Amino acid sequence: MASVVFAALLLSGACSAQTFQRLGTCPTLGCIFPPDQADFLAGQYFDIRLEVHAPINGSEANGKLPDPDFTFTIAKGNGTAVNATEFFNTSEPKLERWNFTWYEDLFAKDAGTPSVVNVTSKAYRKAALYEPGEYTATLTYNNGTKTHASWLVRDLCQVRKTKNVILFIGDGMTTNMITAARLIAHKAINGRYQTKMMMDQFPVLGHQMTHSIDSFITDSANSATALYTGHKSTVNALGVYADSSKSPFDDPKIETIAELFWRITGGHVGIVSTAFIADATPAALTAHTRDRAQYGAVVDSFLNGITNYTWTNWTGPDVLFGGGAEQFYDPKLGGKTYLNKNYYTEFANKGYQILWNNTALSKAKNDTKALGIFTVSNMAKWLDRNVYTANLNQSLSPSGDKKPALDQPGLKEMTLKAIDILSARSGEKGFFIMSEAASIDKMMHALDYDRALGELLELDDTIKATIAHLKSLNKLKETLILVTADHGHGFDVMGSVDTKYLNAQSTDRKKRSAIGTYQNSGLSQYAMTGNLTYSEGVHFPANWDPRYTLFSGLGADPDRRENYQVHKDGPRVPAINITEAADYYVNPKDAKTGFIANGTLPMNDDQGVHSLTDVPVFAMGPCQELFGGVYNSIDIFFGMAECLGLGRRHA
Amino acid sequence: MASVVFAALLLSGACSAQTFQRLGTCPTLGCIFPPDQADFLAGQYFDIRLEVHAPINGSEANGKLPDPDFTFTIAKGNGTAVNATEFFNTSEPKLERWNFTWYEDLFAKDAGTPSVVNVTSKAYRKAALYEPGEYTATLTYNNGTKTHASWLVRDLCQVRKTKNVILFIGDGMTTNMITAARLIAHKAINGRYQTKMMMDQFPVLGHQMTHSIDSFITDSANSATALYTGHKSTVNALGVYADSSKSPFDDPKIETIAELFWRITGGHVGIVSTAFIADATPAALTAHTRDRAQYGAVVDSFLNGITNYTWTNWTGPDVLFGGGAEQFYDPKLGGKTYLNKNYYTEFANKGYQILWNNTALSKAKNDTKALGIFTVSNMAKWLDRNVYTANLNQSLSPSGDKKPALDQPGLKEMTLKAIDILSARSGEKGFFIMSEAASIDKMMHALDYDRALGELLELDDTIKATIAHLKSLNKLKETLILVTADHGHGFDVMGSVDTKYLNAQSTDRKKRSAIGTYQNSGLSQYAMTGNLTYSEGVHFPANWDPRYTLFSGLGADPDRRENYQVHKDGPRVPAINITEAADYYVNPKDAKTGFIANGTLPMNDDQGVHSLTDVPVFAMGPCQELFGGVYNSIDIFFGMAECLGLGRRHA
Repeated sequence: MASVVFAALLLSGACSAQTFQRLGTCPTLGCIFPPDQADFLAGQYFDIRLEVHAPINGSEANGKLPDPDFTFTIAKGNGTAVNATEFFNTSEPKLERWNFTWYEDLFAKDAGTPSVVNVTSKAYRKAALYEPGEYTATLTYNNGTKTHASWLVRDLCQVRKTKNVILFIGDGMTTNMITAARLIAHKAINGRYQTKMMMDQFPVLGHQMTHSIDSFITDSANSATALYTGHKSTVNALGVYADSSKSPFDDPKIETIAELFWRITGGHVGIVSTAFIADATPAALTAHTRDRAQYGAVVDSFLNGITNYTWTNWTGPDVLFGGGAEQFYDPKLGGKTYLNKNYYTEFANKGYQILWNNTALSKAKNDTKALGIFTVSNMAKWLDRNVYTANLNQSLSPSGDKKPALDQPGLKEMTLKAIDILSARSGEKGFFIMSEAASIDKMMHALDYDRALGELLELDDTIKATIAHLKSLNKLKETLILVTADHGHGFDVMGSVDTKYLNAQSTDRKKRSAIGTYQNSGLSQYAMTGNLTYSEGVHFPANWDPRYTLFSGLGADPDRRENYQVHKDGPRVPAINITEAADYYVNPKDAKTGFIANGTLPMNDDQGVHSLTDVPVFAMGPCQELFGGVYNSIDIFFGMAECLGLGRRHA
Repeated sequence: MASVVFAALLLSGACSAQTFQRLGTCPTLGCIFPPDQADFLAGQYFDIRLEVHAPINGSEANGKLPDPDFTFTIAKGNGTAVNATEFFNTSEPKLERWNFTWYEDLFAKDAGTPSVVNVTSKAYRKAALYEPGEYTATLTYNNGTKTHASWLVRDLCQVRKTKNVILFIGDGMTTNMITAARLIAHKAINGRYQTKMMMDQFPVLGHQMTHSIDSFITDSANSATALYTGHKSTVNALGVYADSSKSPFDDPKIETIAELFWRITGGHVGIVSTAFIADATPAALTAHTRDRAQYGAVVDSFLNGITNYTWTNWTGPDVLFGGGAEQFYDPKLGGKTYLNKNYYTEFANKGYQILWNNTALSKAKNDTKALGIFTVSNMAKWLDRNVYTANLNQSLSPSGDKKPALDQPGLKEMTLKAIDILSARSGEKGFFIMSEAASIDKMMHALDYDRALGELLELDDTIKATIAHLKSLNKLKETLILVTADHGHGFDVMGSVDTKYLNAQSTDRKKRSAIGTYQNSGLSQYAMTGNLTYSEGVHFPANWDPRYTLFSGLGADPDRRENYQVHKDGPRVPAINITEAADYYVNPKDAKTGFIANGTLPMNDDQGVHSLTDVPVFAMGPCQELFGGVYNSIDIFFGMAECLGLGRRHA
């Protein structure tokens, strides 16, 4: 099938555009979602979207109207292709029409000459394929032109092998960052670490490839969709393939691991994140929208699932812990909620305990569902909660009363409580918990490497405490623990910096002489305090502000100033807008003693960006052997689904 | 023991210097090599060096002379400490004296105020520990001050599990680079790669930590020492611990995997590299010197081993293939050889075939040892040998006749021939081959990412051909294949670049708008040519110069210009010296259509540097299970030694 899709490019030479695409996954004028090369779990629900494009200008214009009479068939294996309505035993969907515009390249954008495309479309809702094997979906349009999609229902064992799954996601976490975190928090003698990260001790190691469906760099929405549904998608899309229509809520959906686990086995679900809870990584477990910024709707989906277009039933997770109070509290207090509702009330009305601080979290009942929202926006960083605590004095109370949110739990406290509640409530059904260290990514974006590594070390500390806690509950052997990431940032450590020397120099060029590489990188001084004790047992740096710091950086930056010291006044803001046209340049308040380094990112980028690298997967517990070696991000979904025995070969 | 070493830092607060160290591994004034935390293979030869330091100025000065009456004892487990001469049944070494200077920090260097240290020292040569378990080595000096070193002889199974080992080293190769190489050479449809790298298909994945003994960033000498001897060392050191004496040849040696394999089992050794063959990664198999730049002596060690100070016997590898003819040919032709000898003659006199080009290589006899030197300096890069072949027109003939070296083999041709010769000659003894893709590292240093990824793809192609060749020889099942690296570079891909748009812009800042991140990264265009065919079967890019290129970079650079296009005229030179004082700035001849980006490296760096990241290990074959998970670089040595059954519990 592959060759058919790509051969169509011959018809549209100028259309091999790259910065922009008419529609991702659809290089021809006839589009099928799920597209070619989609894999399915047997019995997994999904929607189908068909589109026929008629470009009215630009390099692809052919003078045609979009075909309203396209047809769509499915064939199993080498069998006969039958009409989709017959195949899925459903009625013919109604024809939809719309148009959209796009730029063929940056020259067209500069010139303000968009290409316009008229569209005819149909959507089939809540389909499923049960019998393992290959299928061919065929869209026939424009008097016989065909687009084929080759689909595969994987033939997985249906025997459940694990009772529980805990999926830890270090957002944006790479092997390079783990290496750096180990360096600043674990003691080494003569090149030998005396202790290891908890994730280093997992028995099985894998790498997952994060390439998204229509671009080789992914965002967290897109990659979470791959991890939770087994289907790659487009940047900003949660649990859907992105179509070209205007509505962010009509895109073709795919059932997630959380929805499947609940629907098929009655398993209980917990969602924990240090981000605002409507952020992509938690959101993708229940939300289905092309636009991750539909935060209000995301919060509603946590509680009510997706009810439009007939979707799978969902009654809310047992646990939902994180930040982002502004999507919950009363709009009269400034809340920005779905349909202007008070979502604390909405959750309470469905029997949830409402928790606003760590004290309440620790005292919460284990037999009752819990919503814990601990701050406006993202949760405080480990470094600010534990070292630079004055930075907590901001108007971020989760109640919306503009007081500070001083009593915030960390990822560890949230995760352990989630385990307690899920353990108490799930009984023989088992549980699935997703626990996200979100601000590894957020602080990497801000070039605030100290805070990012602090978040990574908190994740590792959480994993360690989780293992100990599961052991004490006698649940370790029945729980698959996975630790992975959703994408990378191009971060690494190249040496050390003598900050005393750097700060004493008067020119930008001479300041760079403070950097020591190779043998002059020396040894980490973060694990030592002035009186030379190490942070034994609890593996965080004993000193975040040593004279010799890490010389670290990203592969691409905005213009910024570098002094390689910890940012004591709160998360770093490296670049600010110097014109009305989004032209970002060095923030004069950041790293004042440093030197100016101009970056390579476009001027409208104020922060670092995601990168291509494969990210690590650490596995421990039942089924761990499925997660070794190098594989696609979607294989994480299929691995978890196989371990939980979620495939169903009959309706 | 650890606490003792570090407690000593209390005595010397100002001595926690980092950019410079008085002597790596020796924070106190009494030094033992091998130092604390050293592990040994049972029966592995090693030298011991003791030093007592008397700083005569600087923060550590105490007015003392270096103690000539220090004593040294060894205790096995909790047993009695006995004098080393008794323990090793050897005579007391003679006392040596010297002095050296160092700078306490960059301020002292700027001020020209070195610290001077007087030294007394002894060296015990060719010791070995046979009985597994812990040992305590104790140096007593200055009237009772003690330095302890805790040593461990690992208790490894002595049963040989593999007949052969092939160790592939991608110098400087990281997971990030593998991901980038896959992107440009393997076809993806809708986020699914249709083919994988050969190394992706290995069943076992590990990460090795490359932290060196006295700095957290390593070079290739240091890391090769760890991989081949199980002992971490210092930057620039080959098969020794670095002492403070002036001679680069008297440092304490450790027996390598090649020496052990030959001495213990009579196994045959092959050495293959695309570097000049005296470079660190091949050199560390037989050379023992603190200074990797002793190229002439390195070449002599390949043939004759190390004869000073009584060392293990060595009669030369069966195969030695690479570049670096200038260390072989007659000094009258400009050769820079050890003792002004002609090393082609030296090797020929010991029965070696001498091979100077790919044609001769392919015709070489399999029953005879072979020296293949194919160019002056490093071998030509895959990209120049296969695409930009005009760049081969340089005076680099291996004969020294100043003609071009046009007929150079690649890593694949050299490795397959090495397998043929080793297979034919080793019989039941088995073979060990180290095959290095050296210029992944060299081209990363030059910020020449295209050439670096070409070298990585050639490595992968070599691995694929090796597996096929071993299968055809019926030797695959008796051969452990390892693929790893020695350190990283902070490389990643962050998006794509519309080079047509970049080149059309007139200002540096506007050129940066050509960069596409996230969804605007689009899809790789390297695998497509103008007529839309893919490089099927042979996985190299079909088009190295597409309109949309990779937006990639390092975490630290010299000042340079970036246009993100392939460097057609040969390996990139990003920065040149603009003053006599080694002040490197943008090379005006490089990437002329690009924009200037100032880097963060010191002004005296003209190229990229190594990084901290753990590097991947891919394992296939007998013993593969030893190489999964996260571990120290030295564990590669112990894993290979265990698989080959090289430990000996009795003399």
